[in-house]
Amino acid sequence: MTNRVYNFGAGPAMLPTPVMQKIQQEFLDYQGLGASIVELSHRLPLFKEILDTSESLFRELTGLPDNYKVMFMHGGAQMQFSAVPLNLMSRKSHKGSYFITGRWGTLAEQEARRYGSTEVLMDGKEFEYRKIPYFDISSLDQNTSYVHMTTNNTLYGTRWHEFPDTKDVPLVADSTSDILSREIDYSRFGVVYAGLQKNLGPSGTALVLVREDLLGKALPETPKLLDYSLIAESQSILNTINVFGVYVTRLVLEWVKEQGGIPEMEKLAEQKSGILYEVLDNSDFYISVAHPDHRSTVNVTFHLEHDQALQKFLSESEGEGLFALKGHAAVGGVRASIYNAMPIDAVKQLADFMKEFERTNG
Amino acid sequence: MTNRVYNFGAGPAMLPTPVMQKIQQEFLDYQGLGASIVELSHRLPLFKEILDTSESLFRELTGLPDNYKVMFMHGGAQMQFSAVPLNLMSRKSHKGSYFITGRWGTLAEQEARRYGSTEVLMDGKEFEYRKIPYFDISSLDQNTSYVHMTTNNTLYGTRWHEFPDTKDVPLVADSTSDILSREIDYSRFGVVYAGLQKNLGPSGTALVLVREDLLGKALPETPKLLDYSLIAESQSILNTINVFGVYVTRLVLEWVKEQGGIPEMEKLAEQKSGILYEVLDNSDFYISVAHPDHRSTVNVTFHLEHDQALQKFLSESEGEGLFALKGHAAVGGVRASIYNAMPIDAVKQLADFMKEFERTNG
Repeated sequence: MTNRVYNFGAGPAMLPTPVMQKIQQEFLDYQGLGASIVELSHRLPLFKEILDTSESLFRELTGLPDNYKVMFMHGGAQMQFSAVPLNLMSRKSHKGSYFITGRWGTLAEQEARRYGSTEVLMDGKEFEYRKIPYFDISSLDQNTSYVHMTTNNTLYGTRWHEFPDTKDVPLVADSTSDILSREIDYSRFGVVYAGLQKNLGPSGTALVLVREDLLGKALPETPKLLDYSLIAESQSILNTINVFGVYVTRLVLEWVKEQGGIPEMEKLAEQKSGILYEVLDNSDFYISVAHPDHRSTVNVTFHLEHDQALQKFLSESEGEGLFALKGHAAVGGVRASIYNAMPIDAVKQLADFMKEFERTNG
Repeated sequence: MTNRVYNFGAGPAMLPTPVMQKIQQEFLDYQGLGASIVELSHRLPLFKEILDTSESLFRELTGLPDNYKVMFMHGGAQMQFSAVPLNLMSRKSHKGSYFITGRWGTLAEQEARRYGSTEVLMDGKEFEYRKIPYFDISSLDQNTSYVHMTTNNTLYGTRWHEFPDTKDVPLVADSTSDILSREIDYSRFGVVYAGLQKNLGPSGTALVLVREDLLGKALPETPKLLDYSLIAESQSILNTINVFGVYVTRLVLEWVKEQGGIPEMEKLAEQKSGILYEVLDNSDFYISVAHPDHRSTVNVTFHLEHDQALQKFLSESEGEGLFALKGHAAVGGVRASIYNAMPIDAVKQLADFMKEFERTNG
């Protein structure tokens, strides 16, 4: 076993060590075929089996209703910033409505302007995105094409605890940073997407869930590889998909199942984040970024009272094997991303480090 | 060393064994960091170094002129079927002109219709794509936005030996299957792209070369991740790129350099394909698909005189460790894809197998 550090980076993020070991072990010779998984055709039955198993595991873990497609698409979550309006704008008023609760929502709304009108339902900017602003959902224009939200905001460490009832308007969620970390009633959503690189696998590809009645409505200018109907029909292999990405995702889904599934992941996320929030709440030295009412269970963000101490905090934590704790440039401070693969012991070690650092530097 | 077969699949294709071994060896711990390359942020200096080295190696190997950008983009070559018209159609007559020499050219032209008018300069369909039809390039409309070609046709095993002089019209090449296997004067082209999964790395991503004067002209409906200018400006990390794909490509480029560069790859491709074409030319049992004037050096395609023998050929060759020789469904027969990573000894073994098979089944 090599000396693996605890990698608190926001993504591409740490993956479960048993998964990484399995990839390494079979990397030159997949299932005795004498070739690597990355050297095999996406048209082979053995790859179809990997795709099918990924889908069935995801359905089993999440209880995704049968009337949703499970697809892998090129380009990560940001390609979906384009794909969502391209596929959904043709509904009704040709207008996309956005909840802006952080950076990704901002970028998603900007991208949608290419394809129709957009409407910002609320924007957390005035709160520096430390909270999820209130919005009276009864005022939602039922003629809008869709409503877009970001379920968890990686940069600021906030999340929606509950989801708005948009009635007949399809609710679209970017769940890149919290997919598989909490139980979700997917029937509340029209589309859910997630870049693989935080909770599912390596970077470059997204998992996309689409309710079937939303298929077949892409705008004429939709590039074929962004057309949900064509990807669904082809079962994700309209062209050569990221074979390695799908393969790793399958292994991660198996690992989640072995750990006890999403209820166990959710419980652990609450425990892990709870350990860190307790340190923050008992300290005047650390200042929590996220408002207590909207705290994420997977990204814990804070500043140090004295910003000069930040560099010292980062280098000393790294020296103890607590890696990549630097906050996003737009927020500064510290961010601990503690997705499913992060062991609770690592979080306890970080909490101990924080207390000791406060004692000696506070 | 595990028992690696010779994988003649067209793509995702065999990669050089030393590259695969290096990936395996450092998979859990990249450069002593205690984390895998797939777990590291694309914003880290060490990943920037991987991107920069890939670019400089590619420039060094190919002599790419300085006024071309080197970019990695999501989605493989087929995403470029959309990206090319989206980025180039705004020039002059809003018309894309296509040389159709096989399946990929056909699909590229169909996709371009979404974004403007298209013109088929010639179509090899009447020759079942066994040859590259003649086209009088002096008749080219100099007002067309661009001319698109496929330099090597994977399914049929044909290639362009020389490239048409399109004068002031940007020539665009899909070089997925022959990039790095032949010396190319890139100054002849406006855009060259290649999915990684044949000669460069794993699937899901494309390498894209764009002449700088063609930047900044994307149509307004261009998804931001398909806009050449934005990708060039961001140096391929407008969003999270396929970190693993870029990393493997860097290793493959290093390997090509160690082997003696593209002149050596080209010489080997000619030798390897020559060995197989000699068997075909001395046989009535095997029937070459490609016309002798347009033969590819990287995909060798043929039928068996008696189609009943095909299944036997495929299963017996597989039994000897010669893997994935089945032709594309649209063509049938046998296809030996012999990209850079395929050793000449494997090709000799295939030639021996073919002669022996003919002797016992002819």
